[in-house]
Amino acid sequence: MSISIDTLDTPAVLVDLDKALANINKAQHYASEHGFCLRPHIKTHKLSFFAHRQVAAGAVGITCQKLTEAEIMAQAGLSDILLTYNILGAHKLGRLVNLARQVSLSVVTDNLPVIEGYDRVTAGADIPALRVFVECDTGGNRCGVQTAQEALALAQRIIAAPNLCFGGLMTYPASGKQAQADEWLGQARGVFDAAGIDIPAITVGGTPDMWTAGDMRNMTEYRPGTYIYMDRSQVAAGAATIGECALSVLATVISRPTENRAIIDAGTKTLTSDLLGQDGYGHIIGHEDSRITALSEEHGTIRSGEGASLPAIGEKVRIIPNHACVVTNMFDHIYLVSDGKVIDRLPVVARGGVS
Amino acid sequence: MSISIDTLDTPAVLVDLDKALANINKAQHYASEHGFCLRPHIKTHKLSFFAHRQVAAGAVGITCQKLTEAEIMAQAGLSDILLTYNILGAHKLGRLVNLARQVSLSVVTDNLPVIEGYDRVTAGADIPALRVFVECDTGGNRCGVQTAQEALALAQRIIAAPNLCFGGLMTYPASGKQAQADEWLGQARGVFDAAGIDIPAITVGGTPDMWTAGDMRNMTEYRPGTYIYMDRSQVAAGAATIGECALSVLATVISRPTENRAIIDAGTKTLTSDLLGQDGYGHIIGHEDSRITALSEEHGTIRSGEGASLPAIGEKVRIIPNHACVVTNMFDHIYLVSDGKVIDRLPVVARGGVS
Repeated sequence: MSISIDTLDTPAVLVDLDKALANINKAQHYASEHGFCLRPHIKTHKLSFFAHRQVAAGAVGITCQKLTEAEIMAQAGLSDILLTYNILGAHKLGRLVNLARQVSLSVVTDNLPVIEGYDRVTAGADIPALRVFVECDTGGNRCGVQTAQEALALAQRIIAAPNLCFGGLMTYPASGKQAQADEWLGQARGVFDAAGIDIPAITVGGTPDMWTAGDMRNMTEYRPGTYIYMDRSQVAAGAATIGECALSVLATVISRPTENRAIIDAGTKTLTSDLLGQDGYGHIIGHEDSRITALSEEHGTIRSGEGASLPAIGEKVRIIPNHACVVTNMFDHIYLVSDGKVIDRLPVVARGGVS
Repeated sequence: MSISIDTLDTPAVLVDLDKALANINKAQHYASEHGFCLRPHIKTHKLSFFAHRQVAAGAVGITCQKLTEAEIMAQAGLSDILLTYNILGAHKLGRLVNLARQVSLSVVTDNLPVIEGYDRVTAGADIPALRVFVECDTGGNRCGVQTAQEALALAQRIIAAPNLCFGGLMTYPASGKQAQADEWLGQARGVFDAAGIDIPAITVGGTPDMWTAGDMRNMTEYRPGTYIYMDRSQVAAGAATIGECALSVLATVISRPTENRAIIDAGTKTLTSDLLGQDGYGHIIGHEDSRITALSEEHGTIRSGEGASLPAIGEKVRIIPNHACVVTNMFDHIYLVSDGKVIDRLPVVARGGVS
């Protein structure tokens, strides 16, 4: 298969294979050079195709955010999965045990009821001990225990469970709060040391701060997700250049109601409403003076800058979205592109499922 | 099938069948009483199941926003479709002609290149004359001709084409600008009258203003979409009560990191980032004092109000989203609920395709 991008019906998601592979290698090289493990988060691409390439490049395994993602990656032959999400409920816990039969599985917790669930379903199950990380809130204000003492108490409860083992600490620091996370984790190490409990691994995430991850003193594993595709918000954060962005949305100008307004067939059901602090809804390649000022569900409004010219009706444009992870999630398929040609069409296998 | 809602894995989209049918009937009753046609926009539900019920209740046909939506609805037996989107490009135009062989099809245009495409593919094709509406920008600042004179010129071009017929005028007025739209359309009628050209139909849309649509003097057909499910933004606009909202998201509290913070398993990949002017990302039924203050991809953060209590870990909550149309688009399936029980699981058949 090698067809022209221009023949694709729009909107379509294009992924430049060469750029994605370069991004995979660059991150792996950085991690290897700085002596930490990489465990890429597949929520960005949701494709076993790229998960296998991340592992082939040197990743120790993958990270999933949803049980369905993990199940689909396991079916596709990925063998080492960290599920960074509290799993609750009898049905999901049953699926979790089933998953632990297939792959080397690690999970997380930040509370007692979740550990009790893991304990209940693994006790007596014919599976290897389930590795459980304790999630720590190091400034992200999402999930995670608030103090090292809480982390220790949960670790002790994990260790006491017959078929659970303590995997270590896990955190997703807010963008720009890496140093704060490192300090939090350092204090936790002190608390665990004092209690005589070893922390086998400390896993940390986030593409925005990945290029300074080597400065962290209390981290053994990093879980970047967006780095494979990069996007406009990562460019704004200094983590990539526009030229390194592998994912773009192909859209067609369907209307030019006024001199300075163009309407494209990409709205919130393509680009999503995610702003992530950006001005407008994406970077239009080759039309840097113009902005995507508004989206409705299937329409995007482009306004031209002073003296800038807008594309004509029927012209196609390529847009680097603000947030790649949510865009790929909107589509059933992405198109793989190399050397300016479409070389394959991949189903986004891990989208659409429950948590 | 009749299972308990509580047994569903989350996040899940629930649609209360009785409320949805009541919403369908209420809108149809209003339209019939005020003497205009209803042509519901199926982009909200993307289900042939509800499209058939809308027609059975009295709708003259359906509206689609994407060619794929129209194709899927045609395959499901819907026979009268208005596609309110400029269709461009050889491949899509070929699909359009194919669609015109199956159903009574109407399309729109707001520019000459689009008409030329319709003209080119229909001339000589063995199909009934394709009905083409001229889209007018009556204040929505999206697509549409800017003046009645432009509309007239396009109508004349449509009339001159051998296998196109002029369907009338179409507009999507911005919320709250119905009177302005009515005035615009009234002036256009004057311009068309003076030119001796009949306007067969004037089709207007939008749930927020639908209950005053009867006040419009220059409208024959109305295209509400969201009205079938309603949502938090429609409640804010006064178009519905919370009790009339048929669509809700079922989510589980997976973490309670602090006294006033609860984390649910519904983030932007469930609720989307659409705010539509609302404060927070949804209305939590039974927890009206608390707000969903932040979303990441698979996490939602709930903050409790002064003195309000938050649900415990493992508890399920139901959320009326800000915008129902984009939420149903995130999921491969919705659960039909009646009398508090799950009665069916329907694939969202028309999601995921190109425009």
